[in-house]
Amino acid sequence: MNDIFFNAHHSPPGAFASFTLGYKGAKGGFGLELSSPADQSVFIGLQRKNSDSVFDAFPFYEGTGSGSERFDPEKTKNDTPQILNEFTDGKIARDFRVGSDTWHSGDLSFTIYTPVFPIPDPLSADPEELKRVITPAVLIEISVDNSRCSHPRTAFFGFTGKDPYSAMRFYKGSSEDPFTGIGQGLHIAVGTRDKGVLSGLGFSAENILTCNNEKNLSFGLGSTGLILMKVPSGEKRTFHLAAGFFRGGRATSGIDTSYYYTRFFKSVEEVVSHTLDNYEWYRKSALSSDEMTDGKGLSEDRRFLVTHAIKSYYGSTELLISEGKPVWVVNEGEYRMMNTFDLAVDQLIYEIEMNPWTVKNLLDQYVSRYSYTDKTRFPGESREYPGGISFTHDMGVSNHFTRPGTSVYELSGLDSCFSYMTHEQLVNWIICATVYCLRTGDRSWFEENRSVFGNCLRSMINRDNPDPLKRRGIMQLDSSLTEGGAQITTYDSLDPSLGQARGNVYLAVKCWAAYVLMSNLFREMGCDDLSEKSEKQASLNSATLIGSVNDEGYIPAILEEDSRQAIISAIEGLVFPWVAGLTQEVDIDGRNGNLLKVLKKHLEVILKKGTCLFDDGGWKLSSTSDNSWLSKIFLCQFVASEILKIDPGENGAVADAAHVSWLLDNRNSYYAFSDQIVKGEARASKYYPRGVTSVLWTLLPNV
Amino acid sequence: MNDIFFNAHHSPPGAFASFTLGYKGAKGGFGLELSSPADQSVFIGLQRKNSDSVFDAFPFYEGTGSGSERFDPEKTKNDTPQILNEFTDGKIARDFRVGSDTWHSGDLSFTIYTPVFPIPDPLSADPEELKRVITPAVLIEISVDNSRCSHPRTAFFGFTGKDPYSAMRFYKGSSEDPFTGIGQGLHIAVGTRDKGVLSGLGFSAENILTCNNEKNLSFGLGSTGLILMKVPSGEKRTFHLAAGFFRGGRATSGIDTSYYYTRFFKSVEEVVSHTLDNYEWYRKSALSSDEMTDGKGLSEDRRFLVTHAIKSYYGSTELLISEGKPVWVVNEGEYRMMNTFDLAVDQLIYEIEMNPWTVKNLLDQYVSRYSYTDKTRFPGESREYPGGISFTHDMGVSNHFTRPGTSVYELSGLDSCFSYMTHEQLVNWIICATVYCLRTGDRSWFEENRSVFGNCLRSMINRDNPDPLKRRGIMQLDSSLTEGGAQITTYDSLDPSLGQARGNVYLAVKCWAAYVLMSNLFREMGCDDLSEKSEKQASLNSATLIGSVNDEGYIPAILEEDSRQAIISAIEGLVFPWVAGLTQEVDIDGRNGNLLKVLKKHLEVILKKGTCLFDDGGWKLSSTSDNSWLSKIFLCQFVASEILKIDPGENGAVADAAHVSWLLDNRNSYYAFSDQIVKGEARASKYYPRGVTSVLWTLLPNV
Repeated sequence: MNDIFFNAHHSPPGAFASFTLGYKGAKGGFGLELSSPADQSVFIGLQRKNSDSVFDAFPFYEGTGSGSERFDPEKTKNDTPQILNEFTDGKIARDFRVGSDTWHSGDLSFTIYTPVFPIPDPLSADPEELKRVITPAVLIEISVDNSRCSHPRTAFFGFTGKDPYSAMRFYKGSSEDPFTGIGQGLHIAVGTRDKGVLSGLGFSAENILTCNNEKNLSFGLGSTGLILMKVPSGEKRTFHLAAGFFRGGRATSGIDTSYYYTRFFKSVEEVVSHTLDNYEWYRKSALSSDEMTDGKGLSEDRRFLVTHAIKSYYGSTELLISEGKPVWVVNEGEYRMMNTFDLAVDQLIYEIEMNPWTVKNLLDQYVSRYSYTDKTRFPGESREYPGGISFTHDMGVSNHFTRPGTSVYELSGLDSCFSYMTHEQLVNWIICATVYCLRTGDRSWFEENRSVFGNCLRSMINRDNPDPLKRRGIMQLDSSLTEGGAQITTYDSLDPSLGQARGNVYLAVKCWAAYVLMSNLFREMGCDDLSEKSEKQASLNSATLIGSVNDEGYIPAILEEDSRQAIISAIEGLVFPWVAGLTQEVDIDGRNGNLLKVLKKHLEVILKKGTCLFDDGGWKLSSTSDNSWLSKIFLCQFVASEILKIDPGENGAVADAAHVSWLLDNRNSYYAFSDQIVKGEARASKYYPRGVTSVLWTLLPNV
Repeated sequence: MNDIFFNAHHSPPGAFASFTLGYKGAKGGFGLELSSPADQSVFIGLQRKNSDSVFDAFPFYEGTGSGSERFDPEKTKNDTPQILNEFTDGKIARDFRVGSDTWHSGDLSFTIYTPVFPIPDPLSADPEELKRVITPAVLIEISVDNSRCSHPRTAFFGFTGKDPYSAMRFYKGSSEDPFTGIGQGLHIAVGTRDKGVLSGLGFSAENILTCNNEKNLSFGLGSTGLILMKVPSGEKRTFHLAAGFFRGGRATSGIDTSYYYTRFFKSVEEVVSHTLDNYEWYRKSALSSDEMTDGKGLSEDRRFLVTHAIKSYYGSTELLISEGKPVWVVNEGEYRMMNTFDLAVDQLIYEIEMNPWTVKNLLDQYVSRYSYTDKTRFPGESREYPGGISFTHDMGVSNHFTRPGTSVYELSGLDSCFSYMTHEQLVNWIICATVYCLRTGDRSWFEENRSVFGNCLRSMINRDNPDPLKRRGIMQLDSSLTEGGAQITTYDSLDPSLGQARGNVYLAVKCWAAYVLMSNLFREMGCDDLSEKSEKQASLNSATLIGSVNDEGYIPAILEEDSRQAIISAIEGLVFPWVAGLTQEVDIDGRNGNLLKVLKKHLEVILKKGTCLFDDGGWKLSSTSDNSWLSKIFLCQFVASEILKIDPGENGAVADAAHVSWLLDNRNSYYAFSDQIVKGEARASKYYPRGVTSVLWTLLPNV
């Protein structure tokens, strides 16, 4: 990694909030419910040792003019004093970890702490524990080494507000306020209780730094706020700041919810106070969180990728409460679609490790409000056959829940982006639900949903073929909801190699996984009949796949359509039995060895430049598209090495380095983690949560 | 008026909300708590008679591309169909009135109705009446004449959301929703219950208009929403829409308040439903409101100015509730400072006519939370003399209330913009309070504040001179809070001709008015001693002013400083005795005739080109500044003709036409009403409420 200036999320879990920082310019800051960085100037700096009228700062701001022109229209000169300098690039160091992100330059360093906890199930959690875990705040620790300086120096932390509705404000920290700090409206506050600290507002950071009358720090028209920290000569000092987020009252439309944390906090001031009260506990927790990627034997590139993905993930999480019950939402990055199911199935890999109850919560929401029943049709025909239950693509967008049974996304009459994902979402529910049951052993939840499981199996089989003799274990019929169009997959923006659902090898292998998972779960739950049906479908599916290998040794993207398209994603579905703990089902020398060996060969054949590798060695999911998806690449890399036992050799590190370079490319790194990378450029799915599939790498025994 | 494309506010009272419309482009729309127009595209149009694949619309939108690129990054072409055309400028007509704003082109017309009511005192009002008056909604009526068309045509109304936090949504109007419509998050909704109406969302208006599958109108990712209204062939139809605004929960920081309307409405849907339930009542009320300027004998230019000012005023009003009590706030246009006192004193002219309790409410807030006590100093000296009570410049900004006794504005150590306005705000409290008492006869409020009145008089006298023998009825000492700087006036951005408080003739005449008002009020309330003191100060003041006339016959802007600056605003203060009903005090042939005659001569001498008239005949408040303030001009025009009995002659209409042309200048008309006009260009105080001083013109007997 040669570039440290990339944006990263620093987010408490479930608050849909992020202190985003790292990209140069006014490109980060405190974002609440945003689809992109907040684009605030963030000021973190220190008075210069040899010239106390100059202040050096990290390069996270832009000059803004004085702001006073609006009030004094005949004034022409900009009266902002020129006293702020950026630290030199080469003299800035960054140490980027899951729970801590530390920056260092000269005598100044700061760390943003974001502990990553498993979130306990709110319905059974100890309230105090839950409160601590979902406190919507991050820590910011600022250290100044003034030991070799003969005069006191002032360090500062602050930002320029950009909210269209609310003003910047300050907290005096006397008896009037519970801390010294700055904030914006009711939603953001940053405070400290350390000594030697002042706070104030001004038209610019420069105006505040040169203000020589403490009373004038209260200037309420200033859209910039700074916390000023004085360090005596000859001393080292560390300042402890907490940054809180808060959205009170009703948070969403469509369904009436509030943020769960409003049960514990009535204001952003309470959030900051609580965090300061428990500062050391949070700091230590954050350092423990670093161990999620540290000491796991990961290469530096992989450690970076997992770290970045986890941090981006939490920036999209939102824990709500509705009628006393928790509602877990993961927002879809820049798109802000809520609980998009084809993301959820990948994020399952992370959540089943961290907080399985969120998987159950999501599945319940899908059953109770976001399921529907359709009929099916063969392509080009209008006759309808039985369909069955499936689930919507999402539950809404930008804090608006759609009405029951509908998504914001799916439209009728299409065969590409924005068409229905009926079959894929059905498979996604089955995978999530079976993995949840198999991993947690939550039998009572299975019993509650027994009929749903049965309906799902029937629905899948109905989409195979109404004639039992013509079933092949894959999707052969489209949903009647497409009205003569065709279903698509999560790879909605790709050409048919991955975009088309029917006959798609990617979806076919996911179907195989779903059948295998159901077969195992139904057997364990004593539903032998359903188990056998599932197993039979898995066998049909397996035979279809094995029979589809072409003369070059790979399975074409679209089965039986004389397709020459090749896709890495064919192997994707294999991960889910592994995640469920059914390692015997994906043992290349085990009962499904034939299929696995075919898929191993498939990947070996296509994983080469000109087919499914980019020139830089990065993985190219489809031979016919330049659009490759990092979250899916991570997943497939894991399947390749851990399930298909393909030794990546030197190419593995080359690929990882390419993937890192995509994220760090200056065109992309503003968006923190992005998923859809078109020839090295993040072109869609930016600021995205899905990269946590990479956590698979940390689940292996440390070698 | 040759230009109809100016933005105007359409605002319910007290909701700090505006449906702003009129400027071309994506420059209007639904704004809640904003300091400028919402910059949304607003789509209002009709299918073309002779070509039903084309839609003509008013020019309040901008092309936006399809919006689908973000989801489909390899797609390159813009798939927005080219079907939307703007009506030709010359074929658009506008009828702009206080309660109604009607646009017409071809077979389509629409009217925005905004009834203007006196707001009853919430503490004593009938709740149902109060609810009706402060309902945060406006009406939009759309009429289509399809009588000469042989096929049905679709009219449409909609907008493109721009809120960073919440999504566009739609209401189906079936049993699920109380109306058919569109909205944004929890804050904006537009709905109707008329037949033949559909609503939907899309990436663009064009996508919605060409959508041929009703189901697909539900596309939740679209940031544009339209209401589609079908008109059968051969028919005329009128559609009745209500647009509601809503901000639930806590509305402000510093003081914990909510919008008062949340007592009556729990959601934006309830607001729209209530408005639709009472549509006809609101519509008739709006038509009655037109009479505030119609039929008053005003010239067309003056009718326009008053209308525009009243509408802009309501866009800044905010009725809150805190601990069961109403809190009235007028926000300061683009600056969003709250209850800025030097605006409030001018807006008093409007409020004392409409809802005097808001004046009382404001005065109470100033006494209980926003007063302070200082000491005084002579310029250049550090010795302190007694000062007294005064009031802050404002109560906060952008929905944040400052802490007690402080404004967001005032800084120490300055002598220009952002310095203290101690003396002016003291005078403003006295003027508002005396006018309130004299106009309403509210003796019990006077009794509650008897000591405040006394303290105010003492504070004014202390600022004249500590030595009774040296008193001259004007301000001679600055506040100790300026710490050696100097106080300023509301004309903060002007040179000393109006910016400097001490010795300023503008402030001096306002002091005279304050003394006269106190003298009368104290006498009426039986406080003869205070009355006499006031009268004595008025006499001293009058003598000082009369003695300051220079050889050219005018009083210099800064008394006794050999100033050659001349200002129109010298006459401003005369309006307040008139507003209080003390016409005998400002009768040019009465007891104060000498002073009035001097001021008459003053104005006659300076009101000429090169001094206090611009080349276009518009009034120039100061001979030494190009910055002129419309609200103040209106006030002074009134004083000139009605109090000083100066016949404006032909110059009056020329001046009015110039002032109108300033507001309609294409550089300015985006901001609706603006106050500070520098040589014809609005450079500060944009989107501003203060222009309601022009309502003075409507208070005269219709001649």
